[in-house]
Amino acid sequence: MYHMENPMMVAGWPTASVPGPSHYWQGGNTLAVPRSLHKETRNKVIKNMKQLGAVLGSVAFLAGGVSRCRDDTDHEELFRQESNFHYVFGVAEPDCFGALMVDSGESILFVPRLPSEYAVWMGSIASLEDFKVKYEVDKVMYTDQIKDFFTSCSPTKIYLYNGVNSDSKSVGKPAHFDGIEAFPCDLEILHPALFEARVTKTSAELEVLKFANRVSSKAHITVMQKVKPDMMEYQQMEADFLHYCYFNGGMRHASYTAICGCGANAAVLHYGHAGAPNNRKLMADEMILNDMGNEYYCYASDITCSFPACGKFDEVKKGIYEGVLDATVRVMKSMKPGVEWRDMHDLAENTIAEHLLKHGYLKGSMEEIIAAKIPGLFMPHGLGHLMGIDTHDVGGYPKGVERFKSLRMNRQLLEGMVLTVEPGCYFIPALLDPALKDETKKKLLCEEKLLSMFNFGGCRIEDNVIVTKDGIELMTNVPRTVKEIEAVMAGSDFPIADSDYPIPRKNL
Amino acid sequence: MYHMENPMMVAGWPTASVPGPSHYWQGGNTLAVPRSLHKETRNKVIKNMKQLGAVLGSVAFLAGGVSRCRDDTDHEELFRQESNFHYVFGVAEPDCFGALMVDSGESILFVPRLPSEYAVWMGSIASLEDFKVKYEVDKVMYTDQIKDFFTSCSPTKIYLYNGVNSDSKSVGKPAHFDGIEAFPCDLEILHPALFEARVTKTSAELEVLKFANRVSSKAHITVMQKVKPDMMEYQQMEADFLHYCYFNGGMRHASYTAICGCGANAAVLHYGHAGAPNNRKLMADEMILNDMGNEYYCYASDITCSFPACGKFDEVKKGIYEGVLDATVRVMKSMKPGVEWRDMHDLAENTIAEHLLKHGYLKGSMEEIIAAKIPGLFMPHGLGHLMGIDTHDVGGYPKGVERFKSLRMNRQLLEGMVLTVEPGCYFIPALLDPALKDETKKKLLCEEKLLSMFNFGGCRIEDNVIVTKDGIELMTNVPRTVKEIEAVMAGSDFPIADSDYPIPRKNL
Repeated sequence: MYHMENPMMVAGWPTASVPGPSHYWQGGNTLAVPRSLHKETRNKVIKNMKQLGAVLGSVAFLAGGVSRCRDDTDHEELFRQESNFHYVFGVAEPDCFGALMVDSGESILFVPRLPSEYAVWMGSIASLEDFKVKYEVDKVMYTDQIKDFFTSCSPTKIYLYNGVNSDSKSVGKPAHFDGIEAFPCDLEILHPALFEARVTKTSAELEVLKFANRVSSKAHITVMQKVKPDMMEYQQMEADFLHYCYFNGGMRHASYTAICGCGANAAVLHYGHAGAPNNRKLMADEMILNDMGNEYYCYASDITCSFPACGKFDEVKKGIYEGVLDATVRVMKSMKPGVEWRDMHDLAENTIAEHLLKHGYLKGSMEEIIAAKIPGLFMPHGLGHLMGIDTHDVGGYPKGVERFKSLRMNRQLLEGMVLTVEPGCYFIPALLDPALKDETKKKLLCEEKLLSMFNFGGCRIEDNVIVTKDGIELMTNVPRTVKEIEAVMAGSDFPIADSDYPIPRKNL
Repeated sequence: MYHMENPMMVAGWPTASVPGPSHYWQGGNTLAVPRSLHKETRNKVIKNMKQLGAVLGSVAFLAGGVSRCRDDTDHEELFRQESNFHYVFGVAEPDCFGALMVDSGESILFVPRLPSEYAVWMGSIASLEDFKVKYEVDKVMYTDQIKDFFTSCSPTKIYLYNGVNSDSKSVGKPAHFDGIEAFPCDLEILHPALFEARVTKTSAELEVLKFANRVSSKAHITVMQKVKPDMMEYQQMEADFLHYCYFNGGMRHASYTAICGCGANAAVLHYGHAGAPNNRKLMADEMILNDMGNEYYCYASDITCSFPACGKFDEVKKGIYEGVLDATVRVMKSMKPGVEWRDMHDLAENTIAEHLLKHGYLKGSMEEIIAAKIPGLFMPHGLGHLMGIDTHDVGGYPKGVERFKSLRMNRQLLEGMVLTVEPGCYFIPALLDPALKDETKKKLLCEEKLLSMFNFGGCRIEDNVIVTKDGIELMTNVPRTVKEIEAVMAGSDFPIADSDYPIPRKNL
């Protein structure tokens, strides 16, 4: 639903003047997300739990994110809900807990009982009924009533979240309340049930992801049209991007720290962090790589555009860029349910290597190049990852599945998965230097030509796609071909009238 | 130093082409901050430690902030240095430690030894010598050499940071390394030595604070000129403010979450948090309260402007606003070294109560009003707080000093202190409702008139000032009088030609 204009709708709270279902909405032209989204996600989780053996009369119990100050100061950090808790309950406030009755599907939200000073500092104190209406859960209680709740419902088992994130290796902490030791608990089922539910998206979730992509795509285009040499990387790229997304899309949080690298910085895969904070000056003869995306209602976007700072490709830049573009197009045309993601990764890196061979950066045959693991030198990251409430979304490595290269997922594509497709080609001295000294590799590398590229940086093209019944749907819509990029940077509207981009664009 | 144009100066790293001292600098017109700032702050800390009895041959040992992922995801949070560590070392990178030799004043920085993959993902790996040049410390070692360092220097005592923050009540964690148990340690001296050093600012620190204030002031003016009814609070206020500060001032971090409240939200003192995220629509007949400030090089600004959404004050708004303005002017004219901050607080809240009495919100005499604690109902927060690397800076309550009302500081003003002056007048139902039922209070309150203001919200005026030898210097420069606000909102440049504001403005 769009354009649901009602000035009294505040922070997603329905009021007497807004009858009917509750929505999260940031006003104006932003997306109104029905809270029923979470009814569906809860059902998915419960269904998975049952398949994994959850017993009759049991309860899933989850902890929400915790409010926090920076170090030992009183600087309150801006809260963003813990991802699993958002998935199940969609609650914005910190320090909550939630329960799901496995038999009935009933949802119970536990909110902190706030002291009266809260009204002075943080705003009027919502009643339990207010929360029930706002979040469309079946029951709301205070967190100091959790033990009483479990005592009175006397569950056969309490299922708690516990398990390892395959990207960060960090372990989720099981929800806790004083006295939980008296109840039979299980740490095995909830984590995989949640993660597997999150692997494919419901249609309501896809609407949110599409909205996030529309806004972030337009923000990238704005950046591309305004960027000028001699500005700092953070100015017309990170700062303008964040502003566009927040102002136009109500997106307060970045999905991740923006990577805005020019020249050699474009080959630093996670450039932009505190030690290298997007603060070099843009030079006219350099490529720019912008990897930026904001989230709406905690649903991510993750988009990369690479383009020349001056708005015109020379032959060298065009050669590298079009190799990456060819990889992305070939991958998108090959994706559909049942396809192994690792095969897509190999397709991408080999396509890029083919182009490097064609342009004289490599020599020998493709067979030799692949056997010597040359392609990975130029694309040292995975082709892409699941995307949802986390930018690197969960479920890429179900228990027992082996790691494949640098990929964050090693499994077959399923209808309803959302993935990034992000091939890239970089000239990274830290990888090429040792390769040029390696007996098996150096004979396939054209040393002089590669050395001339050590300050080039790199290109990445990153799109977000939905796996459909028989292919993909592209959510990201930014200039991709050389013709499109040069036209848009010269002032054309996007999409351009005579586009030569081969993938259909629907989410404009 | 300004306009130090050199495109090769990246992330504050000096290069061969930039001889001489090192600076933090965000390019363009941003401030170049000499790293020697920290030589001075280190000397202050050591001097305080000696006064508190630090022994010969001892070492202060501090831990920097730690890099972190959100919950159990691999979402890396954008790192901002721990405040004490920034004060002493000015280091941008996470996961460092530092030592100060108490006798010689020598500084030793310990940095993580990074794995070779770091070069691919995060950027080229700086050498120990690079860090030494960048941060102008005396020695740099790896964090895995900390124990060896202490073993070889064999300190008489290691002073560790440990103590309670008087605002948040949270406790700073002492720095640790494996094997520290073998050394004589002290937890008492470093915390007060650091906090007392931070209470007054060096001239180099004041330059940074002034720069942060200049940029944030201009951002407030831009917001005031662009704001329009019917927009959402977050759009032309929070989003535009953040963008102005980052784009024009290289200020990537907000000092605190922006408070952008219209109407009744202006009376929610910490509005803007995740549960009430600045997302109501602005109405033409409402007051707006914007409390926003960004930080530069970790040094805060903290500015509040209150103004009518439509750009014109009516008589009611003018009456309330000018009471707050009178309070701020009287306080600024009274501040100088030796003055008790609690007296300034009383002056502010009593001034506001005088105006409320004059306009018929209160009745009785000022003596009765003060005796019945009526002023605090309308200004339930402290007049202001120390400001520096933390927005609510440390040292407001030295050990043993008693809490005074809602103030974050209860001590005499000292030359070199930086404070916010932020009187406010609010109509908060959660405070006024009980007061209207209280025997001693209700006879001094004009119930009907107050009830008519329950949706008004409130006004706050917040400036940042330096305590000078014989008064104050105002760092914040935004429209303050009704005449100034109406002129600027109607399109005039600021400062306006015929200003009627009585406090001198220097930091324009």
